[in-house]
Amino acid sequence: MTAKIAINGYGTIGKRVADAVAAQDDMRVVGVAKARPDFEAKMAIRKGFALYAANPDAGTKFEKAGVKVSGALDDLARAADLVVDCTPEDSGYKPLYEKAGIKAIWQGGEEHSLTNLSFNAAANYEECLGAKFVRVPSCNTTGLIRTLYPLDDQLGVTDVLAVMVRRATDPGDSKKGPINAVEPELEMPSHHGPDVQSVLPKLNIHTIALKVPTTIMHVHALAVDLKRATTEDAVLDVWKRFPRVAFVSGADGVRSTAQIMELARDLSRNRADLYEIAVWRDGVHVTGGKRLFYFQAVHQESDVVPENIDAIRSMLEIQKDGRKSMEKTDQSLGIGIVK
Amino acid sequence: MTAKIAINGYGTIGKRVADAVAAQDDMRVVGVAKARPDFEAKMAIRKGFALYAANPDAGTKFEKAGVKVSGALDDLARAADLVVDCTPEDSGYKPLYEKAGIKAIWQGGEEHSLTNLSFNAAANYEECLGAKFVRVPSCNTTGLIRTLYPLDDQLGVTDVLAVMVRRATDPGDSKKGPINAVEPELEMPSHHGPDVQSVLPKLNIHTIALKVPTTIMHVHALAVDLKRATTEDAVLDVWKRFPRVAFVSGADGVRSTAQIMELARDLSRNRADLYEIAVWRDGVHVTGGKRLFYFQAVHQESDVVPENIDAIRSMLEIQKDGRKSMEKTDQSLGIGIVK
Amino acid sequence: MTAKIAINGYGTIGKRVADAVAAQDDMRVVGVAKARPDFEAKMAIRKGFALYAANPDAGTKFEKAGVKVSGALDDLARAADLVVDCTPEDSGYKPLYEKAGIKAIWQGGEEHSLTNLSFNAAANYEECLGAKFVRVPSCNTTGLIRTLYPLDDQLGVTDVLAVMVRRATDPGDSKKGPINAVEPELEMPSHHGPDVQSVLPKLNIHTIALKVPTTIMHVHALAVDLKRATTEDAVLDVWKRFPRVAFVSGADGVRSTAQIMELARDLSRNRADLYEIAVWRDGVHVTGGKRLFYFQAVHQESDVVPENIDAIRSMLEIQKDGRKSMEKTDQSLGIGIVK
Amino acid sequence: MTAKIAINGYGTIGKRVADAVAAQDDMRVVGVAKARPDFEAKMAIRKGFALYAANPDAGTKFEKAGVKVSGALDDLARAADLVVDCTPEDSGYKPLYEKAGIKAIWQGGEEHSLTNLSFNAAANYEECLGAKFVRVPSCNTTGLIRTLYPLDDQLGVTDVLAVMVRRATDPGDSKKGPINAVEPELEMPSHHGPDVQSVLPKLNIHTIALKVPTTIMHVHALAVDLKRATTEDAVLDVWKRFPRVAFVSGADGVRSTAQIMELARDLSRNRADLYEIAVWRDGVHVTGGKRLFYFQAVHQESDVVPENIDAIRSMLEIQKDGRKSMEKTDQSLGIGIVK
Repeated sequence: MTAKIAINGYGTIGKRVADAVAAQDDMRVVGVAKARPDFEAKMAIRKGFALYAANPDAGTKFEKAGVKVSGALDDLARAADLVVDCTPEDSGYKPLYEKAGIKAIWQGGEEHSLTNLSFNAAANYEECLGAKFVRVPSCNTTGLIRTLYPLDDQLGVTDVLAVMVRRATDPGDSKKGPINAVEPELEMPSHHGPDVQSVLPKLNIHTIALKVPTTIMHVHALAVDLKRATTEDAVLDVWKRFPRVAFVSGADGVRSTAQIMELARDLSRNRADLYEIAVWRDGVHVTGGKRLFYFQAVHQESDVVPENIDAIRSMLEIQKDGRKSMEKTDQSLGIGIVK
Repeated sequence: MTAKIAINGYGTIGKRVADAVAAQDDMRVVGVAKARPDFEAKMAIRKGFALYAANPDAGTKFEKAGVKVSGALDDLARAADLVVDCTPEDSGYKPLYEKAGIKAIWQGGEEHSLTNLSFNAAANYEECLGAKFVRVPSCNTTGLIRTLYPLDDQLGVTDVLAVMVRRATDPGDSKKGPINAVEPELEMPSHHGPDVQSVLPKLNIHTIALKVPTTIMHVHALAVDLKRATTEDAVLDVWKRFPRVAFVSGADGVRSTAQIMELARDLSRNRADLYEIAVWRDGVHVTGGKRLFYFQAVHQESDVVPENIDAIRSMLEIQKDGRKSMEKTDQSLGIGIVK
Repeated sequence: MTAKIAINGYGTIGKRVADAVAAQDDMRVVGVAKARPDFEAKMAIRKGFALYAANPDAGTKFEKAGVKVSGALDDLARAADLVVDCTPEDSGYKPLYEKAGIKAIWQGGEEHSLTNLSFNAAANYEECLGAKFVRVPSCNTTGLIRTLYPLDDQLGVTDVLAVMVRRATDPGDSKKGPINAVEPELEMPSHHGPDVQSVLPKLNIHTIALKVPTTIMHVHALAVDLKRATTEDAVLDVWKRFPRVAFVSGADGVRSTAQIMELARDLSRNRADLYEIAVWRDGVHVTGGKRLFYFQAVHQESDVVPENIDAIRSMLEIQKDGRKSMEKTDQSLGIGIVK
Repeated sequence: MTAKIAINGYGTIGKRVADAVAAQDDMRVVGVAKARPDFEAKMAIRKGFALYAANPDAGTKFEKAGVKVSGALDDLARAADLVVDCTPEDSGYKPLYEKAGIKAIWQGGEEHSLTNLSFNAAANYEECLGAKFVRVPSCNTTGLIRTLYPLDDQLGVTDVLAVMVRRATDPGDSKKGPINAVEPELEMPSHHGPDVQSVLPKLNIHTIALKVPTTIMHVHALAVDLKRATTEDAVLDVWKRFPRVAFVSGADGVRSTAQIMELARDLSRNRADLYEIAVWRDGVHVTGGKRLFYFQAVHQESDVVPENIDAIRSMLEIQKDGRKSMEKTDQSLGIGIVK
């Protein structure tokens, strides 16, 4: 029997999770809830998703706009086994889910304290088996865990300094800037460091963030102190053994995030997404055996999508083995081509 | 028997035409030629296209980079019925095609005088039946013809002023700017006006172009004087009867090119392309009955792709009826959803 | 006796008008009012301007931030002959000015109906002599009047189509976008056309606006139908006879707004401003004798500054002759170098 | 007697050094040499600088463009005591200067090995006294030395990691991108680390660089390990005792480089330059007593200008005391206001 999944919040992450759920054979989308009758809502209907009004006010708006909905969020919650909440942070739907008696996944905009359980498929799939409420950390945090967990697991990490050059807004937004400025996050560490520790509590990490005028990807520059001496090739080998890390190369003409997203489009995936964290092969440097530097790029719109699918399987205990869930998810999404 | 198509030049347009040819049942890709062994070349092989070296120098580069090629451009030309030349302007391959005795299509970077026949499926499909050499005009010119030809055909156009706010470079490029400036094209009219006349020789049109710091789409602001008085609804009806014009709406939240490309990604098409010209429904205005203003957005990377497919069918006389070719092309590419 | 001028609103326009007033010998700044104790407020004090709290709430904020103010806006108003209101639109200070019995100038964010008198030094200086309330239209409107009024005056204008490629926000702002999109103003005509008519009521003009990701200047592409046949040189001669139009040239390497602002910085003016409207000399084209095309660039932060100074002189009848006021203003600001 | 200074290369740096030399009372500009007759050349003449043709080819170009020059670079060299070479890297004028028997300063585009003496006023003024050939390191390197030298001098620095988020091109350029991408410098360390060591040979520093789509400033995120335990206030006190470090504050609304450059414009300096390195006061963080994090912004067009003036005084031994030269330079340029 396929699991019945609801999506609350049909924006950047929500619509991607919906498509990814629809691409699995062990779960299906019973409906998506949205607050505004904009083009994304119309597209949801066109795609065949049952559309629900996220709140009474939304219901009125949909009616006015002539967009037919299948009911209210309450109705959707009752029909589902699990809801993936992709609403803006602090939307406060937890009581509704509790009342409906369904499990729920939140995204990284929420605090870890909302669920006390933050998920990363490679790092703690088994820990989340059967859990009622789980949070998938943000794109940046997930990106950091993707490459740091393998390093810590295989080589031992004593200290991490990550400087995160963040895209300012998503490609589909035209309101936010800056157009021509760099904005450092003056509070330190940025929230990402503690957020990584919500999954990897023993990791010693300091994060620094700056916002720059680009929409397509975040780029992280990392300095990692290792317990065991290593080489650049050995580090690449570590990452090859873990899922959802892809390699790109300046020597192949992939000089910037522009070429990474071009390569992602060439892969003919849904929405031209790149679920993997892209590491520049020729940007990996080891000095003195134990200090590792590397650059990675994060597609902020999609890297958490496979994690959400795995979290569903873990929480609903569809699959007890994390590795097997990841393989299934990755195959369904076309992940693994670029190595 | 399926037509054997070669692609020379596997960049922005070439790789899209290759995928589009591969999506047809009456033609197939016999090979793609490329000059540099970069990530796009590797992706071509991954996609299953036979890769050829576009010139001897390229052959050496491919060998050095360890990228295996199936031969030289000469070999590819001999194996094909028609070559779609997507190389940079003035690459000068015409003699090679003539020697190989194959038909050829060039893109809009070339002058009309190279072929003396410029193609637009809706406007002059029949004129190009059986032609040896044909040119598909540039993205901007094709975009102008897409909406102007229907207007002229149905309502009569006496005068057009088109101001074209052009994207400065494609999303996959990171070298070109400007980052923070607007650059008018001081020569006037810009080359687009005469280029439109290469397909619609009687159209009275003046074009003005400016380059702005964006990568995703061109936007045209048009002022059109009509022979017959009309209304906004009547104009929309005209465009609905012609292919490859899509409507978007500010009222639906599509305020800028950011949301148009977001909508394109939501369509789950290959590379998130938008082959249609997008017209803002609520940006169409008629004053005094005979003066029409409208805005349209052009996805510079892909709008000429369906025209190339139709040009192939016309030149090889696979289909004598332009309407039928367009329908077939559009169905294969998923065009027609957004109306 | 020098006129006592208050500035209410010390942002982009206000701080420039304050500096410009301070540069005159027939008027002086009695104080500037501001709502927030940010770095601009501190800079005002550093410059020696008496700082006032624009409202009671602002007074509290200034006190908390330890920024000493000279009093409230009421106090400032009583000390002044005229206030230049550079507050955001609809700030609603008119009753306060009326109560204080002082004259006032507003900026282009306000509607013409607030004053029923909109000002442009070349066009209607004499009309505003002694007026109580006057409005200086926005940067774009002022830019259009600067070049259109001379054309109409000397050659007769029958019809204008202006397409305005607008900067999205000012250089000092880092919140607003778009970062990578073009946004057309779907309502038509844009408000600029009617706004030009608030000064030049008989001018037949249609304006179209688009917002693009740049911060430094607006660029206008204009198509003007003239009554009398002319030539490109004759048009340049017309503009040379009127103030505040400067010429730049693509042949000199001024290809875009980047080089115009570079040139403005090279002029060593205050804040690197360009008060003139910059017209590309080699972008002026006349077709058929009576149709004129040209491009102009508008420095949105400063082109209205000299108009404000002249408006003060006109309203306080310091100088009855507009030409003489303009000359005095221009000399004080260094205008007139680039011809 | 005032020193006679020639400027070879009148672009971004050259024109600023020319203005700065002209602002001193112990040196004067005897001429500026340029290669192209563009708007900057015309502006040089307008400013009263004698213009020379940088090479024979340039001479021809100037003649064709009708721009009158005072002679060739040879003539200029013979008339000068010292030349400030602001030409593009590897322009190769050293033999010419040697033949003319004049001293020369190069900019950071050149290698340290060209002069074997790299200059920073605070760090090694005395070392360069009387030197024949000196190099002023690049904007980024100078920026790093400005804040690191004081830290090392006062608190002892054991290790530095600097991640440099670089502007992609200068505001006056409209050719270079990226428009929407982040480009890491894959080679590591970036050249800046060794370049800092050309002035501070004992400093242990690793630099990482990324290019982002902005034109106005570089931003550095630094992690510094100190010998002696300190506090945030103590660090700010260290920098206050050294010249050319300015403080800005997010609490004052200076959230990004946009507001820093706005503040610079408010200072009414020549070209709205900011010669100081701007450090965010509320972005300085000390953890564990000995690890310091901070952000600084570098105005790439102007921070080396005062260093060039001091280098002239040191090389020509106009002033033996570096502190006194710096004070004189700073006073002439208006430096020191923002503390």
